[in-house]
Amino acid sequence: MEKFNLNHVYESQQFDSDLLDRVFNVADEMKKDLSAEPRRYSQALKDKIMASLFYEPSTRTRFSFESAMARLGGSILTTENAKEFSSAAKGETLYDSTRVMCGYADLIVMRHNEPGSAKSAAEASTVPVINAGDGSGQHPTQALLDLYTIRDCFPTIDGLSIAMVGDLKYGRTVRSLSYLLTKYNNITIYFVSPPVCKMDDDLKNYLTTNGVTWEEENSLEKVLPLVDCVYMTRIQKERFHDLEDYKRASGKYILEMEKVKLMKEKSIIMHPLPRVDEIPREVDNDPRAQYFEQAENGIYIRMALLLLLLGNDIKG
Amino acid sequence: MEKFNLNHVYESQQFDSDLLDRVFNVADEMKKDLSAEPRRYSQALKDKIMASLFYEPSTRTRFSFESAMARLGGSILTTENAKEFSSAAKGETLYDSTRVMCGYADLIVMRHNEPGSAKSAAEASTVPVINAGDGSGQHPTQALLDLYTIRDCFPTIDGLSIAMVGDLKYGRTVRSLSYLLTKYNNITIYFVSPPVCKMDDDLKNYLTTNGVTWEEENSLEKVLPLVDCVYMTRIQKERFHDLEDYKRASGKYILEMEKVKLMKEKSIIMHPLPRVDEIPREVDNDPRAQYFEQAENGIYIRMALLLLLLGNDIKG
Amino acid sequence: MEKFNLNHVYESQQFDSDLLDRVFNVADEMKKDLSAEPRRYSQALKDKIMASLFYEPSTRTRFSFESAMARLGGSILTTENAKEFSSAAKGETLYDSTRVMCGYADLIVMRHNEPGSAKSAAEASTVPVINAGDGSGQHPTQALLDLYTIRDCFPTIDGLSIAMVGDLKYGRTVRSLSYLLTKYNNITIYFVSPPVCKMDDDLKNYLTTNGVTWEEENSLEKVLPLVDCVYMTRIQKERFHDLEDYKRASGKYILEMEKVKLMKEKSIIMHPLPRVDEIPREVDNDPRAQYFEQAENGIYIRMALLLLLLGNDIKG
Repeated sequence: MEKFNLNHVYESQQFDSDLLDRVFNVADEMKKDLSAEPRRYSQALKDKIMASLFYEPSTRTRFSFESAMARLGGSILTTENAKEFSSAAKGETLYDSTRVMCGYADLIVMRHNEPGSAKSAAEASTVPVINAGDGSGQHPTQALLDLYTIRDCFPTIDGLSIAMVGDLKYGRTVRSLSYLLTKYNNITIYFVSPPVCKMDDDLKNYLTTNGVTWEEENSLEKVLPLVDCVYMTRIQKERFHDLEDYKRASGKYILEMEKVKLMKEKSIIMHPLPRVDEIPREVDNDPRAQYFEQAENGIYIRMALLLLLLGNDIKG
Repeated sequence: MEKFNLNHVYESQQFDSDLLDRVFNVADEMKKDLSAEPRRYSQALKDKIMASLFYEPSTRTRFSFESAMARLGGSILTTENAKEFSSAAKGETLYDSTRVMCGYADLIVMRHNEPGSAKSAAEASTVPVINAGDGSGQHPTQALLDLYTIRDCFPTIDGLSIAMVGDLKYGRTVRSLSYLLTKYNNITIYFVSPPVCKMDDDLKNYLTTNGVTWEEENSLEKVLPLVDCVYMTRIQKERFHDLEDYKRASGKYILEMEKVKLMKEKSIIMHPLPRVDEIPREVDNDPRAQYFEQAENGIYIRMALLLLLLGNDIKG
Repeated sequence: MEKFNLNHVYESQQFDSDLLDRVFNVADEMKKDLSAEPRRYSQALKDKIMASLFYEPSTRTRFSFESAMARLGGSILTTENAKEFSSAAKGETLYDSTRVMCGYADLIVMRHNEPGSAKSAAEASTVPVINAGDGSGQHPTQALLDLYTIRDCFPTIDGLSIAMVGDLKYGRTVRSLSYLLTKYNNITIYFVSPPVCKMDDDLKNYLTTNGVTWEEENSLEKVLPLVDCVYMTRIQKERFHDLEDYKRASGKYILEMEKVKLMKEKSIIMHPLPRVDEIPREVDNDPRAQYFEQAENGIYIRMALLLLLLGNDIKG
């Protein structure tokens, strides 16, 4: 088996289209394996230990990684409040905590409140580190699973049109996904948001430079018939000074069944979850709704990364 | 192997006497297996994942389920504070949380503060859900292990006399056990409690309608020589307005060794634990004391349910 | 395989030099095993369950035990806040909690805030109990891994000179290690500390009675060229009434690279971790720095104890 070119996964920028293909192909194999009996990879990492080192809680992300590790037969050490509970409270540096953890585990999954902390930990570590979100920084496995979900629903990513809807200014996921889409050809992105949550210029400039066509659009209805994928996000109340402004804004970006009907038959609806009310439950049964599949795809992507980083992507 | 008729376990009312027999027979097999070498079921669920989703902490119940899963070779995802830590804090519905969890685990054990939540989760779930207590609602696995303990100590449950002692008004366990006892013939229940903690009329009427003889009795000493089983519970101080009333009341319902001597030689003493002082430690060594065995029986009952719900009750 | 003479590990005093040899020899085997492929002991405890019952959090110690158990193929039940979460809050005794836990697990690792609690739990338990720290009391596995690290770096422990530096009055680890050193011949200990943190007389008397030579010394520089091992500890700010006193005191006991150069070439530097600034990071790359190896040795010592206590030190 060819060596995987990464030792750690701390930011989306580490991935070019070859690496993305590599991860997605292994994820495909994981997806197939989980439906197979007997399962080929169910003991692939049986002598390996993963440490979930969460400096802030995120049960959902943690469970997704731990489920992936369990499905590969590995063991798990876990804490959901490393900040309060660990030696960090005694003034220990992240460097020391990471060095000690290397003696306990074969791979570290880290969630931290400070941007850049995952990369710092990776530099200190003698075992692979995966970033499970570092504050306002990166959450690369979320970006990978988002892109994998699109790839899973269409014959090719090249040429697709995608609407990103809601909180584009503060939403980490839409930025990361946009970034990864520059690795593909002939992509069009529609940014649909209230004025207060518009996508920042830096990313729009980056897209232009890298050959992605983008447009800003105020009306969701106008965009829906044009796109292959609608990526919905939650608009956070706390971004608005005036509650009335919030109500008006968020109301416009709710994807009711009536609006879904404007979409192409073969298009898809995505959401990083949790949702509040931006997608009503009536939409869940529409075949275009892919957000729960998207969450499930997180398992396959994380299984793939665990296998690739631990150098065991083919069962011995 | 015959199919198990339940997809989920959320309330005691789901069990008729056939289903009870089914669960108890598998529990017997689990008990035998744990003392055997080599163990026949130690890898029965090795490719399965159980998620302990506890919206409020209960280390004891959680450990009992997780021990059961570990003894069957399965993997565990665990959180003891889902309420604070999960997306519930962001306004996500239980429906969505459950749907996402289905992609991560093969079975969900849920503890929640709101009555009815386990049933709601079961309706949303594509994998089995077991209720590990939902507020003032149900705790069906406790009721099953209580009844299993009685069955384990007597040739038959039919014809037994049982005293239920202590907090009968607020104690969830005595209500659930009483309910399950209606599935058997010729049962007599003595309710022994201070006036402020008397069993509610609805349950007494239910017993009458379903052929169970019951009596209310103020004096513990009078009842002890008559019964096959004494089920003790803790009287909670906070039920009383007057501290003196509490002291007087609780003092009367302490089962000292002297009172134990009034009991039949073949009778048993049960308690759902934790106890405070309603059973002094001197009683622990009396052969009638079965409360620690009762706690241990929780493992066998939960192993049985895990096996039956995951459709693997015979090793493949 | 010869029976191991301990049923529980609650204090360092349980170990004589034969028992120490026994544990260290198995630890050596564990260290060898972890670098071997295929690993001989990776399934040695596959049907066993360890419960981590931490009444106060200590992620590092907990992970070390859990990593050890995982590397032997065993299962883990874990809580890092048993005090708040368990039935202790309802007034249950440690005796009852322990008795119940015996039905759930094959071995209990307990961290508790009250000195003596591990021994009490051991007395109540029908399964092995290991003390993972009981307040100001004992932390025997730390003492064992400290001594094991010294043994690992020198042909023999007999005849070594050791400096213990920093907070000797309140530091649990230096006391325990000193105690264990009395099991060896011709040992010299230098106690180097600010006056407010001096080693207590009881231990110094104990050392004298048991044939260990000791000296108190104010100057770190004077001691460094004389010793085979420097055991550094953190001086806690809260021991000082006057912040200026603290700064002066702690400054004198920082082991900068310049001071390291005074040490013998074959000497070693130890630290129980976490450190704050008493050893600068520049020292980490000096071959004498052994503190991260020391932390890692905790895995081998704990693997050895788990194997010995569960009676499976040779793979079946």
